[in-house]
Amino acid sequence: MKKSLLALALFGAFAGVAQAQSAVQIYGTVDAGIIKRTDQTLAIGKRANNTLGFKGTEDLGNGLKALFQLEIRYEPDSGTIEQGAGGVQRPLFQGQSRVGLQGAFGMVRLGRGLTAFQETSTQFEPFHGIPSPSGFQTDLTVAGYTSDPLGLVGNSTNRFSNALFYNSPEVAGFQLNTTIGTRESNTGSAAIVGRGTAAAPQYRVGAEASANPYSVSATYKNGPAALMAAVERNSVETRLYSVAGYIMASPDLKLMASRTKQDRGHTFVNNEEVTSWVVGANYTMGASKFLAGYGQKNAGVLNVGLQKTKQFSLGYEYSLSKRTYIYADASQRKSVATTPNSLNIYALGVNHAF
Amino acid sequence: MKKSLLALALFGAFAGVAQAQSAVQIYGTVDAGIIKRTDQTLAIGKRANNTLGFKGTEDLGNGLKALFQLEIRYEPDSGTIEQGAGGVQRPLFQGQSRVGLQGAFGMVRLGRGLTAFQETSTQFEPFHGIPSPSGFQTDLTVAGYTSDPLGLVGNSTNRFSNALFYNSPEVAGFQLNTTIGTRESNTGSAAIVGRGTAAAPQYRVGAEASANPYSVSATYKNGPAALMAAVERNSVETRLYSVAGYIMASPDLKLMASRTKQDRGHTFVNNEEVTSWVVGANYTMGASKFLAGYGQKNAGVLNVGLQKTKQFSLGYEYSLSKRTYIYADASQRKSVATTPNSLNIYALGVNHAF
Amino acid sequence: MKKSLLALALFGAFAGVAQAQSAVQIYGTVDAGIIKRTDQTLAIGKRANNTLGFKGTEDLGNGLKALFQLEIRYEPDSGTIEQGAGGVQRPLFQGQSRVGLQGAFGMVRLGRGLTAFQETSTQFEPFHGIPSPSGFQTDLTVAGYTSDPLGLVGNSTNRFSNALFYNSPEVAGFQLNTTIGTRESNTGSAAIVGRGTAAAPQYRVGAEASANPYSVSATYKNGPAALMAAVERNSVETRLYSVAGYIMASPDLKLMASRTKQDRGHTFVNNEEVTSWVVGANYTMGASKFLAGYGQKNAGVLNVGLQKTKQFSLGYEYSLSKRTYIYADASQRKSVATTPNSLNIYALGVNHAF
Repeated sequence: MKKSLLALALFGAFAGVAQAQSAVQIYGTVDAGIIKRTDQTLAIGKRANNTLGFKGTEDLGNGLKALFQLEIRYEPDSGTIEQGAGGVQRPLFQGQSRVGLQGAFGMVRLGRGLTAFQETSTQFEPFHGIPSPSGFQTDLTVAGYTSDPLGLVGNSTNRFSNALFYNSPEVAGFQLNTTIGTRESNTGSAAIVGRGTAAAPQYRVGAEASANPYSVSATYKNGPAALMAAVERNSVETRLYSVAGYIMASPDLKLMASRTKQDRGHTFVNNEEVTSWVVGANYTMGASKFLAGYGQKNAGVLNVGLQKTKQFSLGYEYSLSKRTYIYADASQRKSVATTPNSLNIYALGVNHAF
Repeated sequence: MKKSLLALALFGAFAGVAQAQSAVQIYGTVDAGIIKRTDQTLAIGKRANNTLGFKGTEDLGNGLKALFQLEIRYEPDSGTIEQGAGGVQRPLFQGQSRVGLQGAFGMVRLGRGLTAFQETSTQFEPFHGIPSPSGFQTDLTVAGYTSDPLGLVGNSTNRFSNALFYNSPEVAGFQLNTTIGTRESNTGSAAIVGRGTAAAPQYRVGAEASANPYSVSATYKNGPAALMAAVERNSVETRLYSVAGYIMASPDLKLMASRTKQDRGHTFVNNEEVTSWVVGANYTMGASKFLAGYGQKNAGVLNVGLQKTKQFSLGYEYSLSKRTYIYADASQRKSVATTPNSLNIYALGVNHAF
Repeated sequence: MKKSLLALALFGAFAGVAQAQSAVQIYGTVDAGIIKRTDQTLAIGKRANNTLGFKGTEDLGNGLKALFQLEIRYEPDSGTIEQGAGGVQRPLFQGQSRVGLQGAFGMVRLGRGLTAFQETSTQFEPFHGIPSPSGFQTDLTVAGYTSDPLGLVGNSTNRFSNALFYNSPEVAGFQLNTTIGTRESNTGSAAIVGRGTAAAPQYRVGAEASANPYSVSATYKNGPAALMAAVERNSVETRLYSVAGYIMASPDLKLMASRTKQDRGHTFVNNEEVTSWVVGANYTMGASKFLAGYGQKNAGVLNVGLQKTKQFSLGYEYSLSKRTYIYADASQRKSVATTPNSLNIYALGVNHAF
């Protein structure tokens, strides 16, 4: 088959046009349990993400693949699409919607998904990155940082829409992951007062990003140990810096720690910095897995409304199979503030992957 | 594989951890037809539920199974998610979203679905429980009762969210089904004045249930006959009592009857009781099935706005295959009230299962 | 198996009841790219429709088939359901939701989908009917016409909900396609002032159609050539007339042209007519395909706000496989009006079918 020179110039050379067919894979998880928070009535809810996804790859020949993934997120207790703050429904494919190409150069994707930092950091979190209030991922691990502050109201805090995702191949244990977003505005985004005033907010309703948001994470794996360093800047130029590591102290015992700082200097006059650290351990014994974690978040001395958060969590998972486990969690979360409070959370449930 | 004693104590003993893989099953129905109501213009709409579902089971060994089911409901005439009153879109997985375990003990599930009574009662209804206005299920069979009065506005009237579902095994023809809901509130629920005032309604916007809602149905099957007794209490403590039975008078002829009462004493001062009864017959002849039903609902003597509803319906289904049938319905619905009215409904359409 | 005479009379004779099982087919496309408009910041978006669909057919015997198709549309850059004007989310099954029967008589379907004209006309458009701003389908090909002006706010402009679709078999190269909608109203439709006043609009909020909308397209294919003639009337009685043709000048070269007129006389006093024409060519060379098109839309001499639109577009598609191609487009759109403007659009992306 003859190639056009224009095609070669624009898109690079592909030695052949293949026609591999590959079926769509349907996958997902259902996670539901009984939850008791000391400040709420007994509830049924989730511990991990609930997903229903569609994905596939196509072999294009010469080591090149086309791939896509569309992932619905939902609330199993009420059957709705995943909900954000105030019960606002998130996008249908909240999990991710991406299409791209994979080859020797790595993987390039376009669309919506977890930022490089948010995705990478889950490996260093004691509850393997689940968004449960017993876990650390969505608050302490990220030092309270939001990846998408100009997104739609109720939107998730750890994703970029309108982004380009690049994952390098792993070379000698080293991998680089980057995400770059456009400055596109969202019709429905909330205003951010920031260094402006209520009348003239720094970011108006539906404002464009003042700079391209990006996220970079680098990982290095060597035998039983792994390290991560990451930096991210969101659409209102808040910066996040994070380092983390884990080591398999024995085949059954994983120890991990992370340290994160966000610099809100672009929109805050005082208390620009929020810092956090989390340590944890996972211990596997037959079908049982024990999870333990402790962490602190410090939001600055002048921020008298909330100065410090301390969280201690224990979890237990019992595998009924490779796809199904039951779990029990207990967690305590203390806020050291002008009106300090303490919150206990208990959960008991089942997680089934399909 | 070694089991932990804690796991045995917490969750019961499972003799082995299996890894059975089972593909996700995709299933559903599309039902669309031409509908003429005497009070509306000719329309295209549905007679039965329209579903697109995903389900699966996993064999965990020792007779134990994990199972899940996620069921989208939609409107085929407009392509939207199923809509409730006022065109409000219902949850994506309006049909059900449940995960659970099944074994010799029966089946336990968590999530959202039809209550025990609402699911069981469909067997005793002349139009096999379809929500068509020609059918009886959604109004006369349930005496106008609502299972979820504190649910989101526009929500379905026959489901519990945030619930635990237990179905016993069938023992000597006897089966027990129970559903227990939490008291969790919904941000968007409507106020219910009840025994309060408009200014101080008995249930405010977003109120918690005043007691745990539950539903229990017991069935007994013996040869060609089946009986049901059921009781349900919703989140505003309205109680429903129902008995029903059917008999296969011949292999082709099913005769059925139900009697239902709701007691609204917790929120009504007058006319606490609504009663209803429905009788019906299904006759199968080759590829044809004839449906006939008659029922009455009595909303109390002092409730002068609407005292009594009488409905008579005829249906015809012609099977083109085991998965596809065409149908024709004719129904008359009379309201005996201060301003009585009569409504005729005709429908002609196709139902396809996949 | 014995058939009832009533069934034969009502629905026609089917010689046998078959039970063919056929699995649900999952299919779709993901199309994402980088877009630069001269009036907007660099963005990530789509060029073609993004779909995730479920469809199937069932063999009923004797040449008769039951069929259904449910098609989700979504925005890959943000993961939401497809959005219309103002970011309003469209129906879940925006693509189509239809069920029907197919046989020697042709195909009859009920539900929601592209009108006969809108579907047929895509064959005569230089960018094969994609909704990209570089393409002509959604504006110039249809002379700015809207198929569903009384639909929900933000709804698509080229579909009927609540409709009956009939496609004849192709006989001697000739085929007839018709779509007939009901007059059903939509709770959320916008008012149309038309020949009324703001206080008394010709069509109120939630108004019924004043006549049944319909669409008819007739095509004739003869060797390398095809012709189309179409007429459509929407729910506010705007009429559309269109003729189009293409010829495969060589196996690699397709030349095409269309001419369309809409008559808005039912709602406009002046400038009732809008006319348009589009010419184009597609040239295939190995894995490369070149697209070129030019068109004009004339909205009437008295309509000083916008008199004429001129669009010139070039496209290039390079197939990596039968299912995946990358593309680059460049398009210029000029408005000849009291305040004329010119808009350039560039796009570079990937389209993957699964």
